[in-house]
Amino acid sequence: MTVAYDGTRYNGWQIQRNTDNTIQGKLSAVLSKMTGSMVEVHGSGRTDAGVHARGQVASFEIDGNYSPAEILAYLNRYLPDDIAVLTVDRADSRFHARLSCRQKTYRYRIHTSIVPDVFNRKYVYTYLDKPLNVGLMRRAAEQLIGKHDFKAFCGNPHFKKSSVRTIISININADANGITLDFTGDGFLQNMVRILTGTLIEVGNGNIPADSMSDILSSQDRQRAGFTAPPQGLTLISAEY
Amino acid sequence: MTVAYDGTRYNGWQIQRNTDNTIQGKLSAVLSKMTGSMVEVHGSGRTDAGVHARGQVASFEIDGNYSPAEILAYLNRYLPDDIAVLTVDRADSRFHARLSCRQKTYRYRIHTSIVPDVFNRKYVYTYLDKPLNVGLMRRAAEQLIGKHDFKAFCGNPHFKKSSVRTIISININADANGITLDFTGDGFLQNMVRILTGTLIEVGNGNIPADSMSDILSSQDRQRAGFTAPPQGLTLISAEY
Repeated sequence: MTVAYDGTRYNGWQIQRNTDNTIQGKLSAVLSKMTGSMVEVHGSGRTDAGVHARGQVASFEIDGNYSPAEILAYLNRYLPDDIAVLTVDRADSRFHARLSCRQKTYRYRIHTSIVPDVFNRKYVYTYLDKPLNVGLMRRAAEQLIGKHDFKAFCGNPHFKKSSVRTIISININADANGITLDFTGDGFLQNMVRILTGTLIEVGNGNIPADSMSDILSSQDRQRAGFTAPPQGLTLISAEY
Repeated sequence: MTVAYDGTRYNGWQIQRNTDNTIQGKLSAVLSKMTGSMVEVHGSGRTDAGVHARGQVASFEIDGNYSPAEILAYLNRYLPDDIAVLTVDRADSRFHARLSCRQKTYRYRIHTSIVPDVFNRKYVYTYLDKPLNVGLMRRAAEQLIGKHDFKAFCGNPHFKKSSVRTIISININADANGITLDFTGDGFLQNMVRILTGTLIEVGNGNIPADSMSDILSSQDRQRAGFTAPPQGLTLISAEY
């Protein structure tokens, strides 16, 4: 299934022991209610607390004779109105939303106008401190494309597995009210898109030199990269298989 | 000035004795704070509690040497983030946002899919009861165009002034997820756009005959028209001068 959600009031995608206030938890609860037995739901990846999705992909296995249309209707009927199931399709039994995922695209929206974007205010990060030089941000972004060890851009200092990922593209578009950054890659470490965005903001405001990305990558030092941009500006756009 | 607001948490545009929770009240308070003396703000028209605006126009008079840019910056700095002042311009001293207004456009959004529109959920009215026949709605809308006494479409039974208004156009557009109705007219009575919308919904679902609009108009009877569609689907788009 593909899922859209406003992450504002959730503790992120992943089920946690202390709270049932997660997207994965809500989906699992409604599917379990429908089937009468516990249904596990696997997402293409975790999104942090406060992060949104327009095209999260999730997989699950259920017994019983439910059509995709029935499942879609049941989910949308019982889910809260800030979570929507956009599509439900049958998949091969080997399909797994996380393990089968080839690439994902995240969008980060920076609002730079003193005039608030009233109707999207919960889906943007307003940055008014200094003007951002988009040319410098693009120059830095180019150096991040490709296969690298992104340990310096990982929010989890105890991460033990490989932190090598491939960024396929970073597109940066400016308009009258702000800047949109689209990141496509084969996978992203914890907080990685938010740290990439924070670093590019600090490049744009002159705090970090545009040509230092290779150095920061090879340092593998989180302290060298920029701040972690806040979650509300980030949306998972799509997952590809 | 032109103003955008998310009306969800407000008691409407107009200042009321018992609450300061109105758009007009917030604008007046910030301008009064800026100038140090009471500033009255006049809108192109009142919007009901829960109704939104993308292009409300309001006028005010202040003493002192403030540039439009200074006023814009001050307002956006001190207003809550669900109210934005989009533009501020000097006007002729005879200009009055309500009295000088030639026409206004309101948009009503009906969401008809079982899949919620997560990111716009507070700005649409979800109607799932019955399928809506857009052809019938358009046929009924045509009979409402022009200069008529709209007493049957007025939410205030004690309204004593003329209830004659001219509707310039009603455009109805359907897409995969719902129906958008755009109403342009020289003025609208209390709840009038919401009652027009409710009536057109009842035409679309077969409850009211499409050809009965002229009868309803001439009856001047509120009971003959349809229900009052809820406020959250309605947005004031623009006011023309």
